[in-house]
Amino acid sequence: MTARTTPRAAGHDYYERLAAAQVAPLWRIPGTTDPEPYVEEVPHVWRWRELVPLLHEATQVMDLGVDQADRRALNAHNPSRRFGTTHTLVAGYQLVLPGETAPAHRHSPGAIRFMLAGSGLTTVEGEPVPMEPGDLVLTPADTWHDHRHPGTEPMIWLDGLDVPFVKQMRANFYEDFPGGGLQPLTRPERDGELRYGPGLAPAGPKPEVNHSPIMNYRWEVAYQALTRLAETGADPYQGVRLEYTNPLTGGHVLPTMACYLSLLEGGVATRALRHTSSTIFCVAGGSGHSIVGGVRLDWEDRDFFAVPPWTWYEHVPDFGVETVLFSMSDLPLLEPFGLYREELA
Amino acid sequence: MTARTTPRAAGHDYYERLAAAQVAPLWRIPGTTDPEPYVEEVPHVWRWRELVPLLHEATQVMDLGVDQADRRALNAHNPSRRFGTTHTLVAGYQLVLPGETAPAHRHSPGAIRFMLAGSGLTTVEGEPVPMEPGDLVLTPADTWHDHRHPGTEPMIWLDGLDVPFVKQMRANFYEDFPGGGLQPLTRPERDGELRYGPGLAPAGPKPEVNHSPIMNYRWEVAYQALTRLAETGADPYQGVRLEYTNPLTGGHVLPTMACYLSLLEGGVATRALRHTSSTIFCVAGGSGHSIVGGVRLDWEDRDFFAVPPWTWYEHVPDFGVETVLFSMSDLPLLEPFGLYREELA
Amino acid sequence: MTARTTPRAAGHDYYERLAAAQVAPLWRIPGTTDPEPYVEEVPHVWRWRELVPLLHEATQVMDLGVDQADRRALNAHNPSRRFGTTHTLVAGYQLVLPGETAPAHRHSPGAIRFMLAGSGLTTVEGEPVPMEPGDLVLTPADTWHDHRHPGTEPMIWLDGLDVPFVKQMRANFYEDFPGGGLQPLTRPERDGELRYGPGLAPAGPKPEVNHSPIMNYRWEVAYQALTRLAETGADPYQGVRLEYTNPLTGGHVLPTMACYLSLLEGGVATRALRHTSSTIFCVAGGSGHSIVGGVRLDWEDRDFFAVPPWTWYEHVPDFGVETVLFSMSDLPLLEPFGLYREELA
Amino acid sequence: MTARTTPRAAGHDYYERLAAAQVAPLWRIPGTTDPEPYVEEVPHVWRWRELVPLLHEATQVMDLGVDQADRRALNAHNPSRRFGTTHTLVAGYQLVLPGETAPAHRHSPGAIRFMLAGSGLTTVEGEPVPMEPGDLVLTPADTWHDHRHPGTEPMIWLDGLDVPFVKQMRANFYEDFPGGGLQPLTRPERDGELRYGPGLAPAGPKPEVNHSPIMNYRWEVAYQALTRLAETGADPYQGVRLEYTNPLTGGHVLPTMACYLSLLEGGVATRALRHTSSTIFCVAGGSGHSIVGGVRLDWEDRDFFAVPPWTWYEHVPDFGVETVLFSMSDLPLLEPFGLYREELA
Repeated sequence: MTARTTPRAAGHDYYERLAAAQVAPLWRIPGTTDPEPYVEEVPHVWRWRELVPLLHEATQVMDLGVDQADRRALNAHNPSRRFGTTHTLVAGYQLVLPGETAPAHRHSPGAIRFMLAGSGLTTVEGEPVPMEPGDLVLTPADTWHDHRHPGTEPMIWLDGLDVPFVKQMRANFYEDFPGGGLQPLTRPERDGELRYGPGLAPAGPKPEVNHSPIMNYRWEVAYQALTRLAETGADPYQGVRLEYTNPLTGGHVLPTMACYLSLLEGGVATRALRHTSSTIFCVAGGSGHSIVGGVRLDWEDRDFFAVPPWTWYEHVPDFGVETVLFSMSDLPLLEPFGLYREELA
Repeated sequence: MTARTTPRAAGHDYYERLAAAQVAPLWRIPGTTDPEPYVEEVPHVWRWRELVPLLHEATQVMDLGVDQADRRALNAHNPSRRFGTTHTLVAGYQLVLPGETAPAHRHSPGAIRFMLAGSGLTTVEGEPVPMEPGDLVLTPADTWHDHRHPGTEPMIWLDGLDVPFVKQMRANFYEDFPGGGLQPLTRPERDGELRYGPGLAPAGPKPEVNHSPIMNYRWEVAYQALTRLAETGADPYQGVRLEYTNPLTGGHVLPTMACYLSLLEGGVATRALRHTSSTIFCVAGGSGHSIVGGVRLDWEDRDFFAVPPWTWYEHVPDFGVETVLFSMSDLPLLEPFGLYREELA
Repeated sequence: MTARTTPRAAGHDYYERLAAAQVAPLWRIPGTTDPEPYVEEVPHVWRWRELVPLLHEATQVMDLGVDQADRRALNAHNPSRRFGTTHTLVAGYQLVLPGETAPAHRHSPGAIRFMLAGSGLTTVEGEPVPMEPGDLVLTPADTWHDHRHPGTEPMIWLDGLDVPFVKQMRANFYEDFPGGGLQPLTRPERDGELRYGPGLAPAGPKPEVNHSPIMNYRWEVAYQALTRLAETGADPYQGVRLEYTNPLTGGHVLPTMACYLSLLEGGVATRALRHTSSTIFCVAGGSGHSIVGGVRLDWEDRDFFAVPPWTWYEHVPDFGVETVLFSMSDLPLLEPFGLYREELA
Repeated sequence: MTARTTPRAAGHDYYERLAAAQVAPLWRIPGTTDPEPYVEEVPHVWRWRELVPLLHEATQVMDLGVDQADRRALNAHNPSRRFGTTHTLVAGYQLVLPGETAPAHRHSPGAIRFMLAGSGLTTVEGEPVPMEPGDLVLTPADTWHDHRHPGTEPMIWLDGLDVPFVKQMRANFYEDFPGGGLQPLTRPERDGELRYGPGLAPAGPKPEVNHSPIMNYRWEVAYQALTRLAETGADPYQGVRLEYTNPLTGGHVLPTMACYLSLLEGGVATRALRHTSSTIFCVAGGSGHSIVGGVRLDWEDRDFFAVPPWTWYEHVPDFGVETVLFSMSDLPLLEPFGLYREELA
């Protein structure tokens, strides 16, 4: 808002008195009439090669399941922020060594894991869920979850949570499992996964949960579905893109987060778009770069990068390489309020 | 309602005058205070061995795609009815010979096909759908559909439609494809099937249809899902039972019909139950009998039988035989109105 | 379907053998390819002047709350049917004399009452509901309800129920109140009505019912709303028309029936339309006639008439008279299945 | 999380290197395992007597509809924040003088106004809406709205918007009406209000909007409904409380904000409760105080006060005075995600 050329005077110390009364004059609040969203967050990429050594170095600082620190994770924070990879989501790498356990807890934020190396087990509400590279594993809000590592190679995954949103909403509750340690196993291994086929579900009343009943989406299944989907065509903006869905509703896997897998043709840049949702992409295969908000972000296998809201972006996969991108989005946080918008170049 | 012991008299010809006025006294309408539903329909089984010869004999009467009769189908009608296998659904066998076509049309009733012999092609809204034994194929209400038979063996399937309901509702519209014959192919083969994996769907806005976007549920996929589901346990009333679902909603495949596949352990009778929905079962494998409303119905491979509403039933699969039952139900017609009830023995 | 000019012959007695096998050849089932619904039901009007004397005469036959017959009602049946004013709905006049009671019962069909004369009380699920002329009173499916008449004038109302539909669906359960007689009063008088204002509702969780929580819509309130609505314009096909709604959802008052109140300008015919839903109109004020399916139905105050599905109709209110029509419709039975269609002239 | 007693050492400058890599170790992020939400916002009351003079003084600084500043409003910010009365909502007083206009604009945040003094007109999407004291007026997200003041007394209302939430979600778009000034009037005055009665709505398809179609809820109507509701009883925690609802759905008036009117009995303290939603109360009549988070907030007519999330509160209306509280809540922002919790003392 342009300032008046000839401002008239209110009483002495007017604005000081307003401040003392805990009010601010609307006509002086910056940004009130900005035509488009003001976005603090910036594009950024976090690289596997750089961070994995730092993650291993953490093992010299703390032991999982022994010390009080029960998760060995490095949280990526946007350069513009103290916390949060975007304004709503936080991602990071987490490491579990062979023999370690991460004790059971639950919390209001929902979480997803995208497995990047090694193999292990997560237990969610009594259901043991095996984890192999490329698998997507859910630990929805308020579900008890813990991790075990019976294997021999270090296990690393990408964590994705809605913590910045839930904290911003002042709704973050946390609880350790009564008695500590791991929770008992009360359901068959991969119980959720076994119950749902393609367009096929157990007969009878649906479970009354607000998230997908499938706790793990295995890589080989998702990748096969992606290649099948590719037979039906690709989108110039998103390539071939499937969503991991909640089979109870056909909607997003979690009430707060959507997860996708995209296949991009080598050497073919996607067309630019922007939208009010923010996205964290993780490279599930291939290499290339993206132009995000005018910034070039180079990436290769297992790197991840943040696309802030209302920021133009396009992907440029390297020539001759099949590129697969996993992504998580906060789209579900906007849809209930009609706040999602997108613009295509 | 018990009659009065000492009825008083109204004026002369009272009831005749009521009838002439097109009204009936509520206190004389039978059944008004019956505690439970009056069900006309009776249990009945239709047998493959008996009906297939009759179906082949029909080829001496009419040619598909040549004569005006464009579907060679025998409709099973309940012994209590002129039309309708139950009060809401009609089933029957349909035969297409090699080289024949069934021209495109569309209608308000929705239909499903459960393939029993041979192989062929159905086209739905421009999408060619291959049909092999055990496949479930949908031709939802108001979708253009036609059939082709490029193979060498006669093709027979079980038809299931909601015609009795739609006719009862006076909402039955029918239309031949403009110009006649087969519709053009405008989408990839198995387009719907290719788009939906287990808990996986194309990203982006959902198609705005009130039925599943998957037109064929292949046998091998459904059977594999059924055996996986079996790993999570069985129900004493229904065995291991999966529902073919609409991945857009997690609900029934059609707004008017639900379809299921059940696995029964050989030699183990299910416990009896009854409900206000009616069911048509088709034997997808195995043999045995069911006790329905006190009547024993023996069945073997590819037979089908009707379980009327609010009628007790239990299945007794033969010892040593794995039995798989396909079924269609009118449950979706009751749910919107709170009219579904069930009782377990 | 036109018959073949040169029918070929199947084996001897082919069609007899089909009939014996409980199947019918689709190509011989009449109506299969009719382009539009076959509607048996016909337009008809039932007249207050003619029926009220017959209703009073019924008091010579049976006593309410004394004899076993617990409702003194004359059910209007369509000339084409033994039962049912349309194919899904039944309407009729019901009479309660001063001092009489109609004992409590409940049943799967839902019911509405539109008061025409006198005043009295209905109790629904423990809530006493006063009834005055023009009031709409609901007794939803499976709610205990009884009637009392503490007044001095005979009380007559129009009943509307979905009995033909519920019976057709074989889902009709009936139960007398344990111990018989009237149910105890457990809630404040007009509890539901008091809780809901225009766009105003009690704060907190909604009651978990599938019908409106308002049991009575008073005439003066509805009529005032109708005249207010008239200020915003009228529709050439329906006049000024408001719907009685379920404030919990904004939808129909009952899951199976919709109720409306329409205001027609004297001397101005509405334009013709038809739709797959059926309607029973009751004259809440004024006089005139309707052309329904080509038949002229003359009506005056408190008469009611049936408009069958897919039948053209238009209303011609008399010149110089304000006409108000109450109506009930089975539209909710079609919407869940995509079976509603309408056509405007 | 308690620090290790004997921390082991990672490589030199480990935490500095983590910071340089834009990651933070989860085990050092404060608050990660706090059992309950951390709430920055504090209870606070803003007083009519104190602020109205400041608001009038603003007229010496800027002219509505003449200067670039198009709204003369004082925004209350929580003592803990630069912006926002709570973490999601902002409230404040707005003043329009006789003859002034506030030009048309629209924006992603939704707004409500609760009228406190004077009378005037708001136009929303072409519909003129009169405003009198006690009226609630909606200007939903992305609707064109402007204000006029044809009266003679200064008009003051309480504004309530979801700006802090929408800005936090980076979804704030703003647009001035093309050509500037006031928008044309294209609908009848009070069009929405006229269409909806108690459980009564225009027949036919519903408008496709995600907010109430009623733009003004008049005081006399709401107050009458409140007194009627009082006949059905009161809640010990909330008194008699009605919600202004969206008659299209029975839900909240806006997708992001809920509005309520409560009646408290003089001299009777409510019982304490807390919940994860935040609330702004405005005194619509009466006086008293509230204990919020252990702080006593005294209030009288037209004051407003903030109750932060997960903060215990109770109201103590003065003896002998009928107290009516208007309130707005961000409950709708939590419900879609299962983040609403409440605790009763």
